[in-house]
Amino acid sequence: MDGRDWGKFLLPYEQTVEELKVKFKTLRTELKKREEFSPIEFVTGRVKRISSILEKAKRLHVPMDKLETGIEDIAGIRIMCQFVEDIERVASIIREREDMILVYEKDYIANTKESGYRSYHMIVEYPVQTGLGMKRVLAEIQIRTLAMNFWATIEHSLNYKYRESLPKELRIRLKKAAEAAFKLDEEMSSIREEIIRAQQLFEDRSNL
Amino acid sequence: MDGRDWGKFLLPYEQTVEELKVKFKTLRTELKKREEFSPIEFVTGRVKRISSILEKAKRLHVPMDKLETGIEDIAGIRIMCQFVEDIERVASIIREREDMILVYEKDYIANTKESGYRSYHMIVEYPVQTGLGMKRVLAEIQIRTLAMNFWATIEHSLNYKYRESLPKELRIRLKKAAEAAFKLDEEMSSIREEIIRAQQLFEDRSNL
Amino acid sequence: MDGRDWGKFLLPYEQTVEELKVKFKTLRTELKKREEFSPIEFVTGRVKRISSILEKAKRLHVPMDKLETGIEDIAGIRIMCQFVEDIERVASIIREREDMILVYEKDYIANTKESGYRSYHMIVEYPVQTGLGMKRVLAEIQIRTLAMNFWATIEHSLNYKYRESLPKELRIRLKKAAEAAFKLDEEMSSIREEIIRAQQLFEDRSNL
Amino acid sequence: MDGRDWGKFLLPYEQTVEELKVKFKTLRTELKKREEFSPIEFVTGRVKRISSILEKAKRLHVPMDKLETGIEDIAGIRIMCQFVEDIERVASIIREREDMILVYEKDYIANTKESGYRSYHMIVEYPVQTGLGMKRVLAEIQIRTLAMNFWATIEHSLNYKYRESLPKELRIRLKKAAEAAFKLDEEMSSIREEIIRAQQLFEDRSNL
Repeated sequence: MDGRDWGKFLLPYEQTVEELKVKFKTLRTELKKREEFSPIEFVTGRVKRISSILEKAKRLHVPMDKLETGIEDIAGIRIMCQFVEDIERVASIIREREDMILVYEKDYIANTKESGYRSYHMIVEYPVQTGLGMKRVLAEIQIRTLAMNFWATIEHSLNYKYRESLPKELRIRLKKAAEAAFKLDEEMSSIREEIIRAQQLFEDRSNL
Repeated sequence: MDGRDWGKFLLPYEQTVEELKVKFKTLRTELKKREEFSPIEFVTGRVKRISSILEKAKRLHVPMDKLETGIEDIAGIRIMCQFVEDIERVASIIREREDMILVYEKDYIANTKESGYRSYHMIVEYPVQTGLGMKRVLAEIQIRTLAMNFWATIEHSLNYKYRESLPKELRIRLKKAAEAAFKLDEEMSSIREEIIRAQQLFEDRSNL
Repeated sequence: MDGRDWGKFLLPYEQTVEELKVKFKTLRTELKKREEFSPIEFVTGRVKRISSILEKAKRLHVPMDKLETGIEDIAGIRIMCQFVEDIERVASIIREREDMILVYEKDYIANTKESGYRSYHMIVEYPVQTGLGMKRVLAEIQIRTLAMNFWATIEHSLNYKYRESLPKELRIRLKKAAEAAFKLDEEMSSIREEIIRAQQLFEDRSNL
Repeated sequence: MDGRDWGKFLLPYEQTVEELKVKFKTLRTELKKREEFSPIEFVTGRVKRISSILEKAKRLHVPMDKLETGIEDIAGIRIMCQFVEDIERVASIIREREDMILVYEKDYIANTKESGYRSYHMIVEYPVQTGLGMKRVLAEIQIRTLAMNFWATIEHSLNYKYRESLPKELRIRLKKAAEAAFKLDEEMSSIREEIIRAQQLFEDRSNL
């Protein structure tokens, strides 16, 4: 660690995570009330640990005085959806918000990572009011289905345990699990279509 | 609804759910500290809605003055696990607790329901201290993996929507999704075995 | 009640209360970290009940289509301080924030109400992002000491119980309690000054 | 610190605090529903910090292997009441509970401490289910009015700051504040009596 006061450095990020969690949780409530369905199942958030910030800075060659712009996920929000189709809906809502600015997006669902990782990432700039005035911080919003999240949680803890040297057998198993998670999402999507079709059939009949 | 004061009738159940949630959440924390791994991923709880209690009483022919013994899941706790193997571990911990008495168990994992439903249920008797003295109430503890829970959530909301008359196409789709969830759990289990094998290999080498 | 969908009408106010609570709670944490003392002891918030909104609209002759501008405390935040001196500090921080606009202030501490009520009120305009775009809502922030709050809580529940017709004996007692609360605040202020004096004395000696 | 694993030592105390907080919070809800008034205003809890445990052990000459019986407030619960009269009501409820055993009581309200400290303390033995079986731990329950709590909070932070050597001027000021807090409680009690008298008068008239 360098000599900086990390407690103070992380303050605006902690505040950003708290504010964004509340904002997406109330969005969930609002959509349930307005449309009787919310594409958001639940929301979590975390501030990156100091050791992980330092590690990532080293790996990406980010100088220590450029952490605020070089590491984009010090503040991280995760939004879980029931269906793959809900992810685009959530992304489009975020794109139109006026209380944060979209910086860029990364689509790891259309472009699944080699490891099997799937998720939709949005980097936003969020203005946060601190005791020293207004400050703009970067935050990463990850949007994924429950099955994607389930798989990613396992992968994360394995990578954490084995670092670079994940045994080959485990890597293969992990990929098979990713395929099973993908299959589960596909089945859920087909249920979703079936539900919509059943509803339309029902409405058509009512209109006769 | 009958003339009873439902607010007061539900009080000991609400208290039971709050106390059991705290107990299983602190158990999670304790196991993480003692064994560096917890078979419990997260815990939720709910008191059954009055309308659902009445519906179930009617379906099971439980007389209105026998609700406390006839409906076993007025207080409900759900414990989510990462791996199928963790479920038995949690069940065996519950069997040995002295602060609740096991009444009986239902294993819907060995005996998957026709619909595709998988879960491990334990009915316990829990002594709860009320303003009117000690009271023993029944509670149902459901133990399941994240994939089982994911599937069951969808099934529950579909059944809620369509009641008995779930369209055949949807029922087939739901079963396919259950198979995909089962497949995901199997892949996760094989990862778990691989992890244990990798660790033993590592330890054997260290001992040479 | 009029025919409006109150659930939807109150949504932006509920959201405002949640966001402001988080903002003032993290401000408390931030000030503790930056200055080792926070003028904020704790923060609460509430949305006004529909019956109270209707009653106030009637009393102040606010037309039903002007509720959003005519009733300023539908969203209400309360900030509790340890010392009377902290109140001005909190007010000056709020005046300088860029994420809300101060509309006006009411100083019921310099101008104690006839009943004995003391508190500092700030009406702010807060921009809240809803599913239908950005919306500006009014919120009332009440800043008070613990003793002021303690007294006000009692007065509120008595007024709620007796409406206009608070018995004369109770009104006199309430005023005496307000004086005792005022006396307690004065004693606390003198302790605060004593603490500052003791610290200066200590520092002077260290500099010899 | 001695060589023990403090994280594990404190586990049953953390669990006790969590369980007791839930139990007294639901008691509050229950009394509000059953009697339309709760003598409990709010409940807090904390586990004593390791440094404070060690300091107290030294001060009271408690050997390090007797901490569990020698330090009675490692698990601490605080129950705040609106009126002095509510304290005895809460104490009598605790005496009759079957889920904890009263060890002894200390009445610092009848016997105010030299410093001005007032509070009602109950030491209880609480059976807590751990991963290693059932364990009986001691817990201290402090019952006090909001004014007593307000004063005690200030005194605690001053003692923490100045240790034994609280300047004489501050000690005198603190005592005056204790008297103001006492006066406030007395005024509140007289309001309480007035409320009860007003209600009886009202009922007597209704019966004519």
